[in-house]
Amino acid sequence: MTLDPLRFEPDRVLVLDQTLLPGEEKWIDVRDADAMAAAIARLQVRGAPAIGIAAALALAVEGSRGGSVAERMARLAKAGGVLVASRPTAVNLAWAVDRVLGVARKVLQSGGEKGDPNRWTEAVRAEALAIWEEDRAASRAMATHGATLFPSETRFLTHCNTGGLATGGGGTALAVLLELNRRRPGGIEVWATETRPLLQGARLTTFELQRAEVRVRLIVDSAAAHTILREGIQGVLVGADRIARNGDTANKIGTLGLALAAREAGVPFVVVAPSSTIDPGTADGSGIVIEERDPSEVVRIRGVPAAPEGVQARNPAFDVTPARHISAIVTDRGLFRGPPYALGAD
Amino acid sequence: MTLDPLRFEPDRVLVLDQTLLPGEEKWIDVRDADAMAAAIARLQVRGAPAIGIAAALALAVEGSRGGSVAERMARLAKAGGVLVASRPTAVNLAWAVDRVLGVARKVLQSGGEKGDPNRWTEAVRAEALAIWEEDRAASRAMATHGATLFPSETRFLTHCNTGGLATGGGGTALAVLLELNRRRPGGIEVWATETRPLLQGARLTTFELQRAEVRVRLIVDSAAAHTILREGIQGVLVGADRIARNGDTANKIGTLGLALAAREAGVPFVVVAPSSTIDPGTADGSGIVIEERDPSEVVRIRGVPAAPEGVQARNPAFDVTPARHISAIVTDRGLFRGPPYALGAD
Repeated sequence: MTLDPLRFEPDRVLVLDQTLLPGEEKWIDVRDADAMAAAIARLQVRGAPAIGIAAALALAVEGSRGGSVAERMARLAKAGGVLVASRPTAVNLAWAVDRVLGVARKVLQSGGEKGDPNRWTEAVRAEALAIWEEDRAASRAMATHGATLFPSETRFLTHCNTGGLATGGGGTALAVLLELNRRRPGGIEVWATETRPLLQGARLTTFELQRAEVRVRLIVDSAAAHTILREGIQGVLVGADRIARNGDTANKIGTLGLALAAREAGVPFVVVAPSSTIDPGTADGSGIVIEERDPSEVVRIRGVPAAPEGVQARNPAFDVTPARHISAIVTDRGLFRGPPYALGAD
Repeated sequence: MTLDPLRFEPDRVLVLDQTLLPGEEKWIDVRDADAMAAAIARLQVRGAPAIGIAAALALAVEGSRGGSVAERMARLAKAGGVLVASRPTAVNLAWAVDRVLGVARKVLQSGGEKGDPNRWTEAVRAEALAIWEEDRAASRAMATHGATLFPSETRFLTHCNTGGLATGGGGTALAVLLELNRRRPGGIEVWATETRPLLQGARLTTFELQRAEVRVRLIVDSAAAHTILREGIQGVLVGADRIARNGDTANKIGTLGLALAAREAGVPFVVVAPSSTIDPGTADGSGIVIEERDPSEVVRIRGVPAAPEGVQARNPAFDVTPARHISAIVTDRGLFRGPPYALGAD
């Protein structure tokens, strides 16, 4: 009953427009990398794993268009650059593009510039689909590893949306929560933050939890500290957009505040992400670029003005939670308890 | 250039409907305590000091209606109960009602039940207007005391609205910031949180700062921790709805998270409130009732649905910040540096 945010056909990708959920289910017809980069920038597809998959599928579509292998390769490299530029913080995006481009180059080298375009195209497509399939498996593995952290707890808080809509599979943090709900007699209760400015928690997490028949309580973001300290929350679980080698984690704006409240309450604060979210090229959080989005997302809410005309707003999309506030990092490769963390060395 | 949220006439109070600001300036004609209690419950008038004044003025109107002194006294006592029940957390409300009722009882006792209704009514009105005037003076005193905490700083963050709209005078935390802006060559910069669910920061604080020509940066609530830690914020200033004797402070939901972020950043976290906000009857935060408001404020934003139909939401309106995270409490009576605090003993 996972909600897939993407559908793949040989010449196009259908993208479920998440900016319209839960009110409207509209699929966008994406036929090239420019259109996919625009959909990613607008958050029509979002969630670090999902945008990696979306970019890989867009490359598969680009690769299938005509021309010699050399022409296709040149087009693919250019498309990769456009896609990577669409959002700077999520490392899965660059990772997925690099993987597809790497295979494309390898096939080109083995067959030469006059090689078989169909064979080249097929290899590109297979790599994109493999990334998607691996993400599905990663969701299952994260759910299993993560659930072991909470043998009997029933009351959790999560931020933003980290479910099926954000990934190729069942999700990251939300997949762990769904697994805990299955394992726990009577189920669990999940407190979801609304996640301004774009309300992914209010619109998407509640929607996925309702569909899965998990008890959910929606709160405004600023009620999180109070809730963690006064409502008996037993674990805070979030996703990640980039994890540095030392465990410093970039995630949706607001995550840092949740970590500070969890520490104050003495409650585990857990990051759940596929291993592709670990960036071996980044030693610590100071090296993570924080995307600043359009201030219009702050001054208007779902189209309605929320502030006087002409007010200056700032709209950082992510924050960095220091590794010292993270109790555990769950990936498809297993469970890392810390701090300290030394990730990405394998 | 203070924005007064209330206007008093002998038989009515005009209340500026703050739920419609900044888009529309509409004055509500309030002619009895029931109507004022409804306006307070709907947050058409809000801010702990302002709702105390509003309740006192509503009592003055109630007192001016006909009947013997005994009849007027009975009506006033009933009206006081209705007003106090309209919002449970702000202690100024109960304090202002008690003050007016106390004077009314004293005059009744001195003149007897057959005393002069006009003299009784005049005394009630004079007490209500005195509360208002004292609050104006308290704003000025808080601004002066608070400003001494920051001899050279220029970058501050505040939450909710604590300006002229929230008080009878220039405000609490915002009055200090306006004073600092006057004192600092080149002015200061104020980062304002939007303050979901009702957006008092986005709608009202930005509006007041724009009018006062203070540089303002609006952020979503969950960007506060990131901003405090990464944007060089030098002080976090908030108001209060109730302060316990030990300094534990109830204020707008989200305040606790700001205090935790300020502590993490090593930045002063300062509470500014008139001395009427100190509740000598409450030893610590565990004794403070937290108002839970209608979940509809969470699932809809300015009338627009923000979540799927039927989602359960929780809407605590306040949280309690422990005294140990508060660097100083500024009142009209002076500056209390702590912790520990021992308030309300004078």
